[in-house]
Amino acid sequence: MPVATPPRITLLTDFGTADGYVAAMKGVIAAIAPAAIIDDASHDVAAGDVHGAAWALAGYWDRYPPGTVHVVVVDPGVGSVRRALAVAAGGRMFTGPDNGVFTYVLDAVPDAVMIELPVAGSAVSATFHGRDVFAPAAARLCLGVPLAQLGAAASGAMRLDIPAAVAGEGAVHGVVVHVDRFGNLVSNIGQAAVGRLGRVSVGGRTCRLRHTYADVDPGELVAVVGSRGFVEVAVRDGSAAALLRAQRGAAVIVDDGAR
Amino acid sequence: MPVATPPRITLLTDFGTADGYVAAMKGVIAAIAPAAIIDDASHDVAAGDVHGAAWALAGYWDRYPPGTVHVVVVDPGVGSVRRALAVAAGGRMFTGPDNGVFTYVLDAVPDAVMIELPVAGSAVSATFHGRDVFAPAAARLCLGVPLAQLGAAASGAMRLDIPAAVAGEGAVHGVVVHVDRFGNLVSNIGQAAVGRLGRVSVGGRTCRLRHTYADVDPGELVAVVGSRGFVEVAVRDGSAAALLRAQRGAAVIVDDGAR
Amino acid sequence: MPVATPPRITLLTDFGTADGYVAAMKGVIAAIAPAAIIDDASHDVAAGDVHGAAWALAGYWDRYPPGTVHVVVVDPGVGSVRRALAVAAGGRMFTGPDNGVFTYVLDAVPDAVMIELPVAGSAVSATFHGRDVFAPAAARLCLGVPLAQLGAAASGAMRLDIPAAVAGEGAVHGVVVHVDRFGNLVSNIGQAAVGRLGRVSVGGRTCRLRHTYADVDPGELVAVVGSRGFVEVAVRDGSAAALLRAQRGAAVIVDDGAR
Repeated sequence: MPVATPPRITLLTDFGTADGYVAAMKGVIAAIAPAAIIDDASHDVAAGDVHGAAWALAGYWDRYPPGTVHVVVVDPGVGSVRRALAVAAGGRMFTGPDNGVFTYVLDAVPDAVMIELPVAGSAVSATFHGRDVFAPAAARLCLGVPLAQLGAAASGAMRLDIPAAVAGEGAVHGVVVHVDRFGNLVSNIGQAAVGRLGRVSVGGRTCRLRHTYADVDPGELVAVVGSRGFVEVAVRDGSAAALLRAQRGAAVIVDDGAR
Repeated sequence: MPVATPPRITLLTDFGTADGYVAAMKGVIAAIAPAAIIDDASHDVAAGDVHGAAWALAGYWDRYPPGTVHVVVVDPGVGSVRRALAVAAGGRMFTGPDNGVFTYVLDAVPDAVMIELPVAGSAVSATFHGRDVFAPAAARLCLGVPLAQLGAAASGAMRLDIPAAVAGEGAVHGVVVHVDRFGNLVSNIGQAAVGRLGRVSVGGRTCRLRHTYADVDPGELVAVVGSRGFVEVAVRDGSAAALLRAQRGAAVIVDDGAR
Repeated sequence: MPVATPPRITLLTDFGTADGYVAAMKGVIAAIAPAAIIDDASHDVAAGDVHGAAWALAGYWDRYPPGTVHVVVVDPGVGSVRRALAVAAGGRMFTGPDNGVFTYVLDAVPDAVMIELPVAGSAVSATFHGRDVFAPAAARLCLGVPLAQLGAAASGAMRLDIPAAVAGEGAVHGVVVHVDRFGNLVSNIGQAAVGRLGRVSVGGRTCRLRHTYADVDPGELVAVVGSRGFVEVAVRDGSAAALLRAQRGAAVIVDDGAR
């Protein structure tokens, strides 16, 4: 017997799991869309780290097939005037707060369509829109309910101010935009901007741009073009963030150096 | 082609995931009920924190649709004389140790039915009933095996002693029953008891009861009626637990204050 | 309507989840095998801990039903000359790096078949074979694509050097091979080797071999035959690793002692 394609929803939050908040969202989804497969993207985004959520989402949203619904609830402004959104972009759908979590998606999909989800009603708490607004909307979307039935057309979603790298004479200037679990420092300098340049400087140290981490000895600093196409600085079997005491926002320069 | 509704099981443990214990439970379930969707509720309950598990479960068990099977394995007494239970309550089913993890469920569902699961046999280890008892029983339940086929009728499940709030003259006295990931202090004082009272005191500090966290400035103390209907004290974009050095059991008072 | 059996894939990594790497792998799988259920085994293996991954996998791979595909990506040598493998063993399938993560599986299944997965091509990054090699291969395998279609026959997979316990006169000498979340010290001394011996020594302390943790008082040291059939040393409601300052590799002796 062939297996029918079930609806699929992903969840990205900063809730952790131990308090049962995430499970409540899953239950709400399962009650509305009983066949839905719910994939945890992450619940370990740092509390309130909207950029971290936006960055993570950028890495997976279009790896999922069209029809997938991505729920993002990193929402320090819950219950305030910030809008609740549902978005259709590139064949996927999204629900989450209008606080910048969709920045990378909207940058990639200029013709994204969005609506504002209503947040009134006795069933909607002031502090948990993940459970009361974003999860049920996502469940309806994955069942095929049209976006327009869930709310009124909206526009002008909030975007995070993500700096762009600047190419100058024989050098590209950028910043660290994300520090990952391994302490890798991911910059905003894309592969195309690098061209034949081969020296990377960050935190007062320099290293060569290589193919992969294992091209240097354990403990050594190395730069590579990472899996999203951006220059990143790592320590093999170690943490560049710890070694360089570098954080998001640290300056990164790629230049010619002494070959 | 319509998608059939698969059986659904949730897992709540204090196992973490890195040792493979949880995956062993999932494998046992998949071997018995190959179509079952297994949702992680959490594996990050503090080691041995039975109340934390009971609290988390209370937040999601009835959000899931009837027919869902909830497995709870926070079980410091595994292998001792404590019973292994399967419970049917409110249309959902449960498996787990008889140590109080079902307290809130049983409080909410007076006509819950329960059986004692056998723990003898060469296939049952003394230290991992999650894998050898609770997971296989849950898998059978989600396939429609009647509860009564899995064991003998039981009663008198252990309940945790959860304090009730006490309403006095113009004031309600309660305690913190849960501290969540954000450092929010959740009390046992329900919305109904609060009425028009508006001042909340905990840990030597007072604050006003507001609609949501964002009604105060970042770093300020605020009280709200949380997503489960209980008064909780938070710090916007911060941790009330850290600020007030308050833990589970700390006294909470809601009164009239100076309006 | 009966529910068809969906393909099932498990994921074991050291990626954490917050960076979106794991979700990217899930998306790749869902795009190729839309009906696949993806179970998280763990993403909390210590960074680069190949033995920890091998140990965890050993605990669940054959609990899952035949046909399951297990993906293991703890891969500090990604992009280097280490091979990428797909393995068929005991009715289950596996994808992951050739760095020892499959040691216990291959020890248990002498007739395992394996192929080398190609890692060339513009769609394969140098730093994220989890997304670009192991996840898509696993998705194809779970759809029924034969192993041989994914690469050329391979042999001689790397094995970790896991010490064996040694039985002497009235004593068995072994080592701690894994420390779990609870601080339990799991040895390589199997139940059969123990026979009637009853005293366990580790880290300068001794204790008796008992049935379960609850056979001693809280805070006391106890040895049991754990859920995988090996002697382990625990502290009831505490951590043996912390009490004894013992780590992987610590000597463990089981002998007769004074009964």
